[in-house]
Amino acid sequence: MSAHTFKANNPALKSFVEVSKDSDFPIQNLPFGIFSTDNAQDARVGVRIGDFVLDLAELSELNLFDNLDFDHSVFYENVLNPFIELGQQNWRATREKISELLQAGSDLERHKDKVLFSIEQVTMHMPVKVGDYTDFYSSIEHATNVGKMFRPNGDALLPNWRHIPVGYHGRASSIVISGTDIHRPKGQILPKDATEPIFSPCRLLDFELEMAFIVGKSTALGNSVSISEAENHIFGMVVFNDWSARDIQKWEYVPLGPFLGKSFASSISPWIVTLDALEPFRVASPEQDPEVLDYLKYEEKHNFDINLEVDLMPEGGEATTISKSNFKYMYWNMAQQLTHHTVNGCNINVGDMCASGTISGKDETAYGSMLELSWAGKNTINLKDGGERKFIQDNDTIVMRGFCQNDSVRIGFGEVSGKVLPAK
Amino acid sequence: MSAHTFKANNPALKSFVEVSKDSDFPIQNLPFGIFSTDNAQDARVGVRIGDFVLDLAELSELNLFDNLDFDHSVFYENVLNPFIELGQQNWRATREKISELLQAGSDLERHKDKVLFSIEQVTMHMPVKVGDYTDFYSSIEHATNVGKMFRPNGDALLPNWRHIPVGYHGRASSIVISGTDIHRPKGQILPKDATEPIFSPCRLLDFELEMAFIVGKSTALGNSVSISEAENHIFGMVVFNDWSARDIQKWEYVPLGPFLGKSFASSISPWIVTLDALEPFRVASPEQDPEVLDYLKYEEKHNFDINLEVDLMPEGGEATTISKSNFKYMYWNMAQQLTHHTVNGCNINVGDMCASGTISGKDETAYGSMLELSWAGKNTINLKDGGERKFIQDNDTIVMRGFCQNDSVRIGFGEVSGKVLPAK
Repeated sequence: MSAHTFKANNPALKSFVEVSKDSDFPIQNLPFGIFSTDNAQDARVGVRIGDFVLDLAELSELNLFDNLDFDHSVFYENVLNPFIELGQQNWRATREKISELLQAGSDLERHKDKVLFSIEQVTMHMPVKVGDYTDFYSSIEHATNVGKMFRPNGDALLPNWRHIPVGYHGRASSIVISGTDIHRPKGQILPKDATEPIFSPCRLLDFELEMAFIVGKSTALGNSVSISEAENHIFGMVVFNDWSARDIQKWEYVPLGPFLGKSFASSISPWIVTLDALEPFRVASPEQDPEVLDYLKYEEKHNFDINLEVDLMPEGGEATTISKSNFKYMYWNMAQQLTHHTVNGCNINVGDMCASGTISGKDETAYGSMLELSWAGKNTINLKDGGERKFIQDNDTIVMRGFCQNDSVRIGFGEVSGKVLPAK
Repeated sequence: MSAHTFKANNPALKSFVEVSKDSDFPIQNLPFGIFSTDNAQDARVGVRIGDFVLDLAELSELNLFDNLDFDHSVFYENVLNPFIELGQQNWRATREKISELLQAGSDLERHKDKVLFSIEQVTMHMPVKVGDYTDFYSSIEHATNVGKMFRPNGDALLPNWRHIPVGYHGRASSIVISGTDIHRPKGQILPKDATEPIFSPCRLLDFELEMAFIVGKSTALGNSVSISEAENHIFGMVVFNDWSARDIQKWEYVPLGPFLGKSFASSISPWIVTLDALEPFRVASPEQDPEVLDYLKYEEKHNFDINLEVDLMPEGGEATTISKSNFKYMYWNMAQQLTHHTVNGCNINVGDMCASGTISGKDETAYGSMLELSWAGKNTINLKDGGERKFIQDNDTIVMRGFCQNDSVRIGFGEVSGKVLPAK
C-alpha cells in the first residue's frame, strides 16, 4: 500500500473553492459523507471541500460523472454502503474525478451554485448503516493505565494482551452522528463497600478518545483476510467517542465484558476520510515484543500520524483542551485488527465499524479518557473557566478532533461533538 | 399477556391440510419464515403447516388477504423485518386470517396446489436481517456449572449474577440458517502449561443449546422498555446453537469477554414461532433470591415450557440424543432481559436477536453444552454407534429441537442443524 501514489494527493493542487490554510478539508482530502439540505428525505452523498459540501448526486445530474462506469443511483442513497460496495477501484476513480472537477480552472466552477452547499446550510447524517461494530483495546498505554488502576498488585497487562489485539463486539444500533445529544444512562451500580447494587443514574460518566475504520469489502463466512490484503478491506476512518459509564461497567463486566456501560451511545465524526487520503501520513508502529504469531506479522507501515484532541466545554462556558494524543501510538494496527478479526472465519460486511479502543500516549496529557486523566478520580482536571472535573457533568459537551499535518498539507477529520443531558 | 386468548390457538381447530399428531406445526402454531422454491431471488414470506409451506405472497395475489389493511409488498420481501415492522396488531391479524384460511372447509382448499409447497420442495433462508445480536447468560444451572469448573475454590456464581441478567454483544453477521455447514475455526490457543500461545484449529469445539427471541418493536435511543411492556416488543422465538470454541475463548476472553471463540458462527432454526402461539405454555419462573431491583420485578408468568433436545450424529452414523433440557429452567426471563437491555437507553430495532445463553437443567442429562456434559473433558459422552466424544469432531452434525406439548396440542420449532467441516 505505501507504494501507492494518488494524483488527488498531490500537495500542489489548488481548488477554485477557497480553502483556508488551517482547514481539515483541502482538495487533497475529499472525505465522503451523507448530507441533506431541506429535509432528511433528501439525504444523499457529498464530499467535503473547505467550508462546503459538494453534491455528488447533482454532479451526476449534470453529466459530470460520465466517465464513472457504474450505476450513479448510489449517490442518491442515504447511506454510503452501496457506493462502498462498488469496490476500491470505483472509490478511487470517484475521488480522482472529484479532484479534477474541483481544481482551479475546472469547468465545474460555472455550476458551483448548483453543486456546492455551505456547511452551515446542511445537516449531516450517519454516513453508513453499521452492520456489526467491534471495539478493540489496542493502545498499550491505555491498557497499562487501566491495569495499574484496577490491579495495583498484579501485572498491569494481562497475559494475552501482547499476543492478541484484544477486542469485543459492541452495540451497532446506538452509534450516532456528531451533534447528537446523549442522555446520562441509568443502571445498576455497586456503591463503594456495599454488597447489594442500587439503581441510579451513572455517576462516573466518561468519554473514550478513539478512531474507527469502516469496512470497504465484504468476506464470506469461513474466509479469512491475510494481513497483506487487510487494508484493501478498509474504506476509511472517522473519529469515535466511545462514551463509557464506568460504574455501570465495573459492576456488570465480569465475566462477559462491557455491555450497558457502553451501549447507551457512541458518537462518530461525519466525514469518512479515505485511507488513500491518509497515505502521506503513514508511519511505523511501535515495536512489538514478544514477536507476534505469523498471521499477525506484517511488512511496510500500517500506522498513521493523526493528531487527536479532546475539548470539554461546560454549559455556557469556555472549551478546555484536556487531552492531546496521536493515533500513531497504537500498539496493534488496523491491518492486524482486521486479520485477527477474520482468522476464525468470521465474515465482515461493508459498513462494519471497528474502533481502536482508547488512544492514550505515554505522557499524562495524552491520556484518552477521564478515568486516566483523573486517575480514577484521585486527581482533578482543571478547566479554563475555573471549574474542575473528575468525570463528565450534565450539560458538558465533549468535542474530539483529528488531523494530520506536514509541511505541505493538512488532512483532517473535523470533529465529533456530543452534549450530555441529564438522565431521563 | 397471560390473559390473552387467540382464536387461532383453539385446540379444536382442524386444517384441510393433513398434519400428523407428532408434527411441530399444527394449525395452532403457524410460524413465519422465508422460503424459496426455484432460486434465492424468489425468497418470500411463508407460514409452516404440517409438512407444507403456505405462500403468503400467493395468498395476496389471490386476493385472499383483502381484509388485511396494509401494504402486502411485505410478503414479497426476502426478510420478515418489513412485515414485523407493521406492528403486533397486524401480525396478529395475519395469523388469525391464515388460521381461518387453513381451516377445514375453507375456500382456500381449491387453491391448494398454488399456495402450498411440500417442505421437500423449498429452501429456507434467514428469516430476518439481524441488526444487533445479544447473548445472555441466564441459566443458573449453566452459570453454576461453568463457575464450578473454572473457579473450583471460589463461589460458583459471581457476585453480580443474581442481580443482573448478564449478557454481552455478539456477532450478528455470522448468524446462519439451519443446514449451513460450519468450518472448524482456527485461532490462538494457550496449550496446557505453556506461556506462549500457538495458532491452531480449535481442539475443544462445542455447541450451546439456546433459544433466541426476535425484537418486534423498535425504540428510540434514550428510551427504556418497562417490564410490563417488554413482551409487546417480542415477535417470536427460534432455537439457537451458539457454537463455541472453548480453547480460543479461554485465552482471549479476559477482560472484554468472548470474541473469536463465538463469532465464527451461530445457527438458528428457520421458523419463528410467535409468542402468541406459545401462550398456552406459559409457566412461572424459578424464584429469584435475593429479590431483584424494582425495574426487574414482574407480575404474571413470563417463562415458557419448551422441551429441548440435542442430537449428535457422526458422519454416516446414528444420531444419539445427548441432552434433554427445557426453556422453563431459565432464571432470568425474556421480559427481564429486554428491560435490562434498554434500561440505559440503548435502542432496539425490529429484527434484533437476543439469545438466552446455554439452557441447562439440574440433572446432568439436561446440560446444554459438551463442556458440561463431559465436565471439561473429564467424562466421556457415549454414542449409540459405540463412539465416544468429549467435544465435537469433524463431520459431526449437531441437531437441536424444541417443542411444547400438552394433552391437546403440540407447538414446535422444528430443528436447527449444522455439520462441522474440517478447518479450512
